[in-house]
Amino acid sequence: MTYIDSNAFDTFDHLYRINLINSCSGYKSANLIGTKCSNGIENVAVFSSVTHIGSNPAMLGFFCRPTTVTRNTYNNIKTTGLYTINHIHESILEDAHHTSAKYDSHISEFDKTRLISEYKKEFKAPFVKNAPLQLAMKFVEEYHIKANDTILVIGKIVGIHVDNELLKDDGFIDLAKANIAAINGLDGYAVPKSTTRLEYQRPK
Amino acid sequence: MTYIDSNAFDTFDHLYRINLINSCSGYKSANLIGTKCSNGIENVAVFSSVTHIGSNPAMLGFFCRPTTVTRNTYNNIKTTGLYTINHIHESILEDAHHTSAKYDSHISEFDKTRLISEYKKEFKAPFVKNAPLQLAMKFVEEYHIKANDTILVIGKIVGIHVDNELLKDDGFIDLAKANIAAINGLDGYAVPKSTTRLEYQRPK
Repeated sequence: MTYIDSNAFDTFDHLYRINLINSCSGYKSANLIGTKCSNGIENVAVFSSVTHIGSNPAMLGFFCRPTTVTRNTYNNIKTTGLYTINHIHESILEDAHHTSAKYDSHISEFDKTRLISEYKKEFKAPFVKNAPLQLAMKFVEEYHIKANDTILVIGKIVGIHVDNELLKDDGFIDLAKANIAAINGLDGYAVPKSTTRLEYQRPK
Repeated sequence: MTYIDSNAFDTFDHLYRINLINSCSGYKSANLIGTKCSNGIENVAVFSSVTHIGSNPAMLGFFCRPTTVTRNTYNNIKTTGLYTINHIHESILEDAHHTSAKYDSHISEFDKTRLISEYKKEFKAPFVKNAPLQLAMKFVEEYHIKANDTILVIGKIVGIHVDNELLKDDGFIDLAKANIAAINGLDGYAVPKSTTRLEYQRPK
């Protein structure tokens, strides 16, 4: 095994460092967050930090740095209170990844990719059409992370659109069945092909 | 597609609800967090919420609910300031999952599974032996999430042990090469077999 002490991190070039540290946490969720600004311009951006916060109330969180490309997403959520979380599947990988490019706020990533916006159930933020799992989200609260000046955005799930084939009898959503991707590091996309479910565990 | 409005969540039985909501975020990291309490008892527990916070400083976060099985992990981190994050790979799936059983704090999950603790580089918290990626972590700060009474624990990476074969020339760690798992929902484990890396994106 190789041992890398944190003292060495500062000696690495920028790209090596961000590749290394971004790979450390393990697989990450692969999502497109859709928003619309108050003057009607749609935005969609790739995120790898969407995380389960709790089931009751049903809430998810994600991290963003308002000084980067995620600024538009953050501003739109703060203005409108609404956003969508859409799962990235195998056939839209390249377009989803392209939304990481730094476009100005007056340009919609929907116009620069083959991704298509979709409106459903009178929800005002755009979903990504054909995503096998689409969540309608409402902003709840945010936390400023002092240690590195990022923001944890927490929202509640107000509605779930899910492909019939993925939803099992016990509520489990089988992500592998829809070729949904996981993110490794900054630019790696893995598409698991099957899932093993294990039983509820009790002390033995 | 099936549409599930949040008003329906309260009508579901408990298991259906937690399966559904825990599957919503997409794939999650599969980690074992190792700690040791002040009187020397080791603890190891499975977590699916380890998330990248930032590269400079190098920090990761995870969520825990101090009233559940994650209580021992949280208490040990608060007491000692130290913990390890170890990646779950295919050959330890069952043992890793078993650490979700509710053992009393005086019982070590290392004694109830085939998982073996390991100490390296004078770090005081136990690593999980043979994990292809092992992180030495130091507590930085915590945030109480008001919306559901959970805690976001943030730590900095003080050292990385990584299998030589996984570490690429540009710092990327290839998780698929070590058969590292991703978690789907509460009890689903998927092991991606390959990763596609895409280029850095600029506006077009």
